[in-house]
Amino acid sequence: MQSGRLGDSRPAEPGPRLRSLCSADRAAWASSLSEAEAEAGCFALAVAAVLPAGGSGERMGVPTPKQFCPILERPLISYTLQALERVCWIKDIVVAVTGENMEAMKGIIQRYQHKRISLVEAGVTRHRSIFNGLKALAEDQPNSRLCKPEVVIIHDAVRPFVEEDVLFQVVTAAKEYGASGAIRPLVSTVISPSTEGCLDYSLERARHRASEMPQAFLFDVIYEAYRQCSDHDLEFGTECLHLALKYCHIKAKLVEGSPDLWKVTYKRDLYAAESIIKERISQQICVVMDTEDEEHVGHRLEEMLKNELNHMKKVTSGKDLQQIILEQCYSFVCVNVMTSDFEETHKLLNMLEESNLSILYPVVVISVHFLDYKSVPFGQTMENLMPIREFAKEVKKRNILLYGLLIYYPQDEQKLKESLRQGATIIAALIKERNSGLTGQLLIA
Amino acid sequence: MQSGRLGDSRPAEPGPRLRSLCSADRAAWASSLSEAEAEAGCFALAVAAVLPAGGSGERMGVPTPKQFCPILERPLISYTLQALERVCWIKDIVVAVTGENMEAMKGIIQRYQHKRISLVEAGVTRHRSIFNGLKALAEDQPNSRLCKPEVVIIHDAVRPFVEEDVLFQVVTAAKEYGASGAIRPLVSTVISPSTEGCLDYSLERARHRASEMPQAFLFDVIYEAYRQCSDHDLEFGTECLHLALKYCHIKAKLVEGSPDLWKVTYKRDLYAAESIIKERISQQICVVMDTEDEEHVGHRLEEMLKNELNHMKKVTSGKDLQQIILEQCYSFVCVNVMTSDFEETHKLLNMLEESNLSILYPVVVISVHFLDYKSVPFGQTMENLMPIREFAKEVKKRNILLYGLLIYYPQDEQKLKESLRQGATIIAALIKERNSGLTGQLLIA
Repeated sequence: MQSGRLGDSRPAEPGPRLRSLCSADRAAWASSLSEAEAEAGCFALAVAAVLPAGGSGERMGVPTPKQFCPILERPLISYTLQALERVCWIKDIVVAVTGENMEAMKGIIQRYQHKRISLVEAGVTRHRSIFNGLKALAEDQPNSRLCKPEVVIIHDAVRPFVEEDVLFQVVTAAKEYGASGAIRPLVSTVISPSTEGCLDYSLERARHRASEMPQAFLFDVIYEAYRQCSDHDLEFGTECLHLALKYCHIKAKLVEGSPDLWKVTYKRDLYAAESIIKERISQQICVVMDTEDEEHVGHRLEEMLKNELNHMKKVTSGKDLQQIILEQCYSFVCVNVMTSDFEETHKLLNMLEESNLSILYPVVVISVHFLDYKSVPFGQTMENLMPIREFAKEVKKRNILLYGLLIYYPQDEQKLKESLRQGATIIAALIKERNSGLTGQLLIA
Repeated sequence: MQSGRLGDSRPAEPGPRLRSLCSADRAAWASSLSEAEAEAGCFALAVAAVLPAGGSGERMGVPTPKQFCPILERPLISYTLQALERVCWIKDIVVAVTGENMEAMKGIIQRYQHKRISLVEAGVTRHRSIFNGLKALAEDQPNSRLCKPEVVIIHDAVRPFVEEDVLFQVVTAAKEYGASGAIRPLVSTVISPSTEGCLDYSLERARHRASEMPQAFLFDVIYEAYRQCSDHDLEFGTECLHLALKYCHIKAKLVEGSPDLWKVTYKRDLYAAESIIKERISQQICVVMDTEDEEHVGHRLEEMLKNELNHMKKVTSGKDLQQIILEQCYSFVCVNVMTSDFEETHKLLNMLEESNLSILYPVVVISVHFLDYKSVPFGQTMENLMPIREFAKEVKKRNILLYGLLIYYPQDEQKLKESLRQGATIIAALIKERNSGLTGQLLIA
């Protein structure tokens, strides 16, 4: 069983981080387990996850429940599923959705090729939805393909940025303590109002924490807690750790989480999530250039990109394109060595279409051409490059955003430098924004 | 004294909302005051604001303190100052900044033409900074231009979206109760950890609230509380309402705030703030078109914009340009009736430059041209329009983002419709993103 799933038809996540995380975790896992367990490998512990996704999203102020709100045209919940899926040791993911969203959810699973997902009907409250998810995992359920896990993770559908390390931490702690949950420092002071709407008392901020997700439990502990808990708990409760404490006397181990665990609650959080996702998929830029000529101006553009772009960005040259696609690079600059010829861009587009890379994220391709004023008149060059509009329309259907960039190539060294710098700026802007309204445009540097 | 300040050289805020709010507020205020006070107008109450801005922003994970992080190239604190400034009845705004940021802060005030601001040196903690601000407002300070207010607002430099109505509510409540603060529902359950890092207890979410800003106090109450409070309070305390309760036995009136009151804390909040600001300044689009010809295709483009754009957006025709600029419209579509002539765009640009509209926000101008294939060849038209690159470079220095849009004008009605629709899409994309990397480009629909 592999976590990178490089053989899969659909890449799961921007790659290098995934693989490094997974191996680090495996080492940590091994050292935290008994020798016998370590020998059996990291999959000795049966782990499942329950994701309540029945909420109506009233705080968002939009009619769509927040877990189904689109980010780069893909529903938020799909990002969260992707975050859980890439963790190889989570065997099953049980999602609780309302009857009216059941078909939509099935469509999402199919379209984005999510694996290991089971759907159950949500209850009218969060606790009831979680309980339904747990029931589906319990052995006494007839006709279920699911097996009862030793540890169950409970997470929110609207926390898409959960990382493998915190999942690992809460699962390990749950095995030892019976229950565990991620916490964060409080951002605001918490107060208690009197019945008259005045300040009764304020809590000392340093002594309290915000309880976040994910949480993990020994399955028997949390299932027992839900079976025993009152209707009042199921209706008005919000905290699973509290149920484990109240009904099973388990004091959950608290794990300090990263800021990434935040919950998408308001409309502004959707904006933030979109910006974070765009930033993540723009970290790596691949420059594709089919020439043996070391002197080609395309290489100077590549250098310029390396210098001009934020140092966080990685500029790769596309020598081993298949590998780069497998590593989930979502931004390509294709330098067409022969002006007014799209052959190289076409080759790249074909490869991208075959790879299914664009199922999860929009892929940006910038087709770069050089204009030497001496050889072909400007207007003619522009006309020759106009077919890019049709190509762009075609590949946009496959979630590939194609733009053209014509770089003026003057004799004057200073002017050439200026053209290349402007080209790099345009490339950076296009990659950062991933604006689908501007595909097929031919920009000029 | 006017709140709209239409005569000012620098517009303060996207307009219509401001003016409607201010008049509504004035009415509310009048009805909440005694008759004598109402007769004296809304300025009988002396109100000042203190803004602690000495934080280091360590949670942001960036070297710049968060209040100085740029959003659309302007520091966050300038947006907060702008939000307070536009409220006519706040007489003074005292900002506490550290010595090392004092010069930068003076630069911000000058560059963005902020009014009614006084600077004091920040303390090492938030409470000490607020105390320094209060001292500057107290009458016993020598050499101070400031007058002791009756009510003082305390707000955060990193909550830029505070609205006049909540400021009004906390000030009114402070006058009646001695203290008042905005609250919000809790997003997460609050728990208390034991010394071993396990769950000790969790709080009932419904019975608690997050204490947010703004808060307001009778000046004598909060000043007395700060004078009496211990060093421990000044070092480790976080809550002004708590000080008023502890030292002056004032139970603050709590006011339910809107989600807009949120505090920019993490990097994701900067992304969210940028998106919100972009959305706000893109709400109104002004179409400028100097023709008497009712049949001109430009009018069809205007119709298309009205239909294609989100219903929230307002498309205005630029008949009374001066008025529209005064009302702080930040997005202009200039239809050049004569192809390959920039005269109309030039006229608009000159007007915008004179207005200083772009001091606070980047202004988008899209210069639209129509291409009739029959009359001029495509390449020739493109070449004729190339000077836009130079114009764009020039006006970008003044924070005006100029783009060109060439709309193909075929005989075929269906194709023309398609061109216009694509033109509207491109216009919407350019206005929404305000991407400074693409200025001077000539886009084609």
